Amino acid sequence: MSDTLPSASAAPGAVVVDTTRSPGARLRPVPITAVRLTDTFWAPRLQRNHENTLRAQYRLLEEKGRLDNFRRAAGKKQLPFQGVYCFNDSDLYKWLEAASWSLALHPKDTALRFLIEEAVTEIAEAQQPDGYLNTYFCAERAGERWTNFDLHEMYCAGHLFQAAAAHYRCTRSTRLLEVAIRLADHICDRFGPEEQGKQRKLDAHAEVEMALVELYRTTGERRYLEQAQFFLDTRGHGVLGKPYKYFEPDYAQDLVPFRELDKVTGHAVRMMYLDCGATDIYAETGEVALKTALDRQWANMTERKIYVTGSVGAFGDGEAFGKDYYLPSVSAYAETCAAIGNIMWNWRMLLNTGEARYADRMEQALYNGMLSGISLDGEAYFYTNPLTDDGTHRRTAWFECACCPPNVARMLASLPGYFASVSAGAVWFHLYGASMGSVTLPEGQTVAWEQRAGYPWEGEIEIRIADAPRNPIALCLRIPGWAQDAALTLNGAPADTALCAGQYARIERVWKQGDTLRLSLPLPVQYVVGHPNVVDTYGRVALMRGPLVYCVEQADHPDVELTALRLPADAELHPIVEANLLGGIVTLRGDARVQDLSDWQHVLYRPFQAGDAGLRSGAPSQRASRLTAIPYYAWANRTPGPMTVWIPTR
Amino acid sequence: MSDTLPSASAAPGAVVVDTTRSPGARLRPVPITAVRLTDTFWAPRLQRNHENTLRAQYRLLEEKGRLDNFRRAAGKKQLPFQGVYCFNDSDLYKWLEAASWSLALHPKDTALRFLIEEAVTEIAEAQQPDGYLNTYFCAERAGERWTNFDLHEMYCAGHLFQAAAAHYRCTRSTRLLEVAIRLADHICDRFGPEEQGKQRKLDAHAEVEMALVELYRTTGERRYLEQAQFFLDTRGHGVLGKPYKYFEPDYAQDLVPFRELDKVTGHAVRMMYLDCGATDIYAETGEVALKTALDRQWANMTERKIYVTGSVGAFGDGEAFGKDYYLPSVSAYAETCAAIGNIMWNWRMLLNTGEARYADRMEQALYNGMLSGISLDGEAYFYTNPLTDDGTHRRTAWFECACCPPNVARMLASLPGYFASVSAGAVWFHLYGASMGSVTLPEGQTVAWEQRAGYPWEGEIEIRIADAPRNPIALCLRIPGWAQDAALTLNGAPADTALCAGQYARIERVWKQGDTLRLSLPLPVQYVVGHPNVVDTYGRVALMRGPLVYCVEQADHPDVELTALRLPADAELHPIVEANLLGGIVTLRGDARVQDLSDWQHVLYRPFQAGDAGLRSGAPSQRASRLTAIPYYAWANRTPGPMTVWIPTR
Repeated sequence: MSDTLPSASAAPGAVVVDTTRSPGARLRPVPITAVRLTDTFWAPRLQRNHENTLRAQYRLLEEKGRLDNFRRAAGKKQLPFQGVYCFNDSDLYKWLEAASWSLALHPKDTALRFLIEEAVTEIAEAQQPDGYLNTYFCAERAGERWTNFDLHEMYCAGHLFQAAAAHYRCTRSTRLLEVAIRLADHICDRFGPEEQGKQRKLDAHAEVEMALVELYRTTGERRYLEQAQFFLDTRGHGVLGKPYKYFEPDYAQDLVPFRELDKVTGHAVRMMYLDCGATDIYAETGEVALKTALDRQWANMTERKIYVTGSVGAFGDGEAFGKDYYLPSVSAYAETCAAIGNIMWNWRMLLNTGEARYADRMEQALYNGMLSGISLDGEAYFYTNPLTDDGTHRRTAWFECACCPPNVARMLASLPGYFASVSAGAVWFHLYGASMGSVTLPEGQTVAWEQRAGYPWEGEIEIRIADAPRNPIALCLRIPGWAQDAALTLNGAPADTALCAGQYARIERVWKQGDTLRLSLPLPVQYVVGHPNVVDTYGRVALMRGPLVYCVEQADHPDVELTALRLPADAELHPIVEANLLGGIVTLRGDARVQDLSDWQHVLYRPFQAGDAGLRSGAPSQRASRLTAIPYYAWANRTPGPMTVWIPTR
Repeated sequence: MSDTLPSASAAPGAVVVDTTRSPGARLRPVPITAVRLTDTFWAPRLQRNHENTLRAQYRLLEEKGRLDNFRRAAGKKQLPFQGVYCFNDSDLYKWLEAASWSLALHPKDTALRFLIEEAVTEIAEAQQPDGYLNTYFCAERAGERWTNFDLHEMYCAGHLFQAAAAHYRCTRSTRLLEVAIRLADHICDRFGPEEQGKQRKLDAHAEVEMALVELYRTTGERRYLEQAQFFLDTRGHGVLGKPYKYFEPDYAQDLVPFRELDKVTGHAVRMMYLDCGATDIYAETGEVALKTALDRQWANMTERKIYVTGSVGAFGDGEAFGKDYYLPSVSAYAETCAAIGNIMWNWRMLLNTGEARYADRMEQALYNGMLSGISLDGEAYFYTNPLTDDGTHRRTAWFECACCPPNVARMLASLPGYFASVSAGAVWFHLYGASMGSVTLPEGQTVAWEQRAGYPWEGEIEIRIADAPRNPIALCLRIPGWAQDAALTLNGAPADTALCAGQYARIERVWKQGDTLRLSLPLPVQYVVGHPNVVDTYGRVALMRGPLVYCVEQADHPDVELTALRLPADAELHPIVEANLLGGIVTLRGDARVQDLSDWQHVLYRPFQAGDAGLRSGAPSQRASRLTAIPYYAWANRTPGPMTVWIPTR
């Protein structure tokens, strides 16, 4: 057993990103068990994730040979590598991480515990004597280890490390952590500065960086942090070369050293995971140059390269960030994993800074671009998430490249941990929803509360204190960036604090049991417009209410060609609670117009005529109609048909 | 020597697609030497093509090892295959075709004749004893011949056959034709129905079909036509299988039998070349089911899947046609070769039918999507032709996949052949431009004329008869589809014929020397709008004048952020002759507006505000500005900067 293995009793709570002892972090996470969701939005989703999603995924992992690959590597089965992609070990690792979090929420689920331990056994037995572990590079390909750095060996290792940290934190078993440590040591022994006789290489798909930092946080072994730093410092110098024809260094962020990189670029998931790793390293080192680079990249992403749904990565070719303002609707790549990577990065930025703008971005991606990635029944997924579609894009149960399904599962399973954080003498409320919370401050004191809320459908949020220390502490409530005219009362009287959209409202006092904060977030229907440089949003509006982005779907407009639907910017839409629609949603309904397209039947271009849609007023051939918008995340759960987020106004 | 080799003296004139004896064709082509261009638009371009382009390309073919590949195959040089792509023999073949046409126009250019014959020698010596010829599959890869049908072996053969037909028709030498016949016989012997003991396979990249028909037309050997039919009939039944991971049968039009295919689909160049082949086969067989399928596919392309520039193939991923109305501006693939394929297909449809709508489409692609593919100096090329760009897209002298450069060269060199055709007792005028013409009617009589025109800058076209038979014949003049209010006089008096935009005006009489037709095509500045389903044209206008599509480019708007430029639909633009700009063009100039984008500086999305651009009137923050539009083909010939065809109106 490695010297670096912590004792099982030292396991922290089930925290996702452990900044508890990170000098550069302002907030400390709370275990995912600290907040128990009781709401009607997330709690049923987490339940479905636990009951359906994780089971279905395990079945598919077994069916598709992902587990057999480990048996093959262990010499227990003779068969060729199963699956198309060399990196599919990571599917099992991500599932293991998800299952570990879910087990922490349901510790009595012995059936799940059995599956987890079975998977851990298969993994452990597949590890090679020298610590190496990757089922693609075994048997006939054992000699090809560490030769092509776009074949995701360290990427897979990173997912193993994250799974191991989760498994250890959720089960207090060190079985998987031991495997992770052996592999991490193998990597640390092999890769590093050439003057140390090591190989100066790194993985073309970032992931291992944040995982090594988390392994450092789990074990206390500083070499893992240093190894993460080595990989971050080495990237951006063309070290990867051009392993195959279409590979450009920019694709793997290997063109510009990270500290000089002033934009998000290349493969979107790689970029997000790299930013996660850099943010984690900053939390440990406080290196200003890193923070500066992260801030610049974040500004570029949020000001130029993000969909209104919080999805990122516009370009299918290379699964990549496009140029500034390149955000096509139909061909939007907007990979589910990239939205998750965006949440993960913003979560780390939030822990480091306590700035609400990062929580805003998490919430945006969570309710929209990420949640659209999974069907309402929790068993089918989108890999890409277009903002306009002709109805042919549908979710499926699995992919040859199955990165997204278990990524959604781990995000959902760990979601309670993102609702609140603590800092010295303060509790921070990031996300809202009916729940019970009990957290421990850095000072060791307990704060407990009950939150009542119909969020995101309703904007009234009540936080009732159940337990608090006798000394004054602060409660910090996020006022979302979209929330104008928020109001906050304490025990019925206006709270004495500034309320700014996009900031935390801080109320410090000695809290007594029964003290009640009521936060009112007005939820008007908002018409949102895009920067005029974005080609595909021009002349269109998107609809939002609270954190939710809406869309119109054919299923609600049986008599209308959806592309002919027009929503004048002065039309009034009303929120309607529809408990029996799509699992219970609030629709937006109201009057709209429908453009007569009959004279366009065999015409693609024609000379401008007075009254042409979108050009100028006159006598447009439009008729009155009704419009129903549903939350974007809920689309493609009924009869297939066209959908759009961005609705023409004229 | 093959029995099928025609005698040199039997060489027809230098016609590009020889429908002279095709039972299904209404028109007969004229040799490219029948029309001598004297205009200021095309004649200088053909001259540059002859003097610069062909020389530069030959130099690059030599530099990049394309010729060395033939020397390697002949055993004259020991070296690995040069270049990235296995199909780069076709670059030389297309160059040879281009050079042959250009030699016909300049028969005294002995230097070019020498290069041509040198290339023919290299090719002939590389042919294997069994007739096989492909330099990729020789030496160490000789055993891999005919195993992967997406490696373009027949595609290359097709380009050889086309080059051979051109070479024979332009030089009356049978040297290259002999090589082509041996390779064609090799293919015919090997591929066919299984009951004949042959391999039931076909090339994933259509091309050989039209080439085999042309070889049949050149040699009279019917097995080549039958072989083309076999390939056409065999496609669409999944025969190709899935040779590699990303290959979908639809990509190579192998999903649906051709006669059932009701849309253009998959890889755009493959689709266009396949349609060319099918149209050629129809010309020989008159099979109605083929014509019906071609008509449906043509309707789908022209009504749903073509750019206003005549470019096709919207999707970069797979270089493919997108779904209906998917025509993105920024990411438009719009490959130069696909625009050429579009011209080639429409030329064949025109020869078969004599319907002006096909000539309209040729003209649209010729002046815009194809011509943008080459720089003004004739030595740099676009592979893709976006309709909106940030200025980073620039032409280059060569590509690893160098299909486009010699394709442009062969189209330009053969262009005079597209200006006119003949049929029994009639001469057809398709394209306009100052020129001298002399053609032979099927009856053997000569018709000669002089055309005076400043086309496409001016719409006055004068055709003065220099020679005509004593019996009545018809002159058919195309009235372009865009030409409203055209007028036609004969010797100063209104001509007694119907004038319909998009049809040929036919004037039949006994013509005397000096008879003069004057066609007036008004050239107002036209604002063009796109179908409301096309996301990227919504709320925007394109500018056309005559056959030319215009664009705005940063170079003409030094003080304006180009994306902020607005062209109200009631603004007036005026054509201005600018002899010293971009080789001599007519610009469109007038008043426009510029949107103030300053309040959008760090914002990507925001709640709608009254006056938001493109949404409704109010108090938009716009200032007056001037707008200058240049022909789309001329963009990216000055200081790099943004460009757009589609200009927002509000």
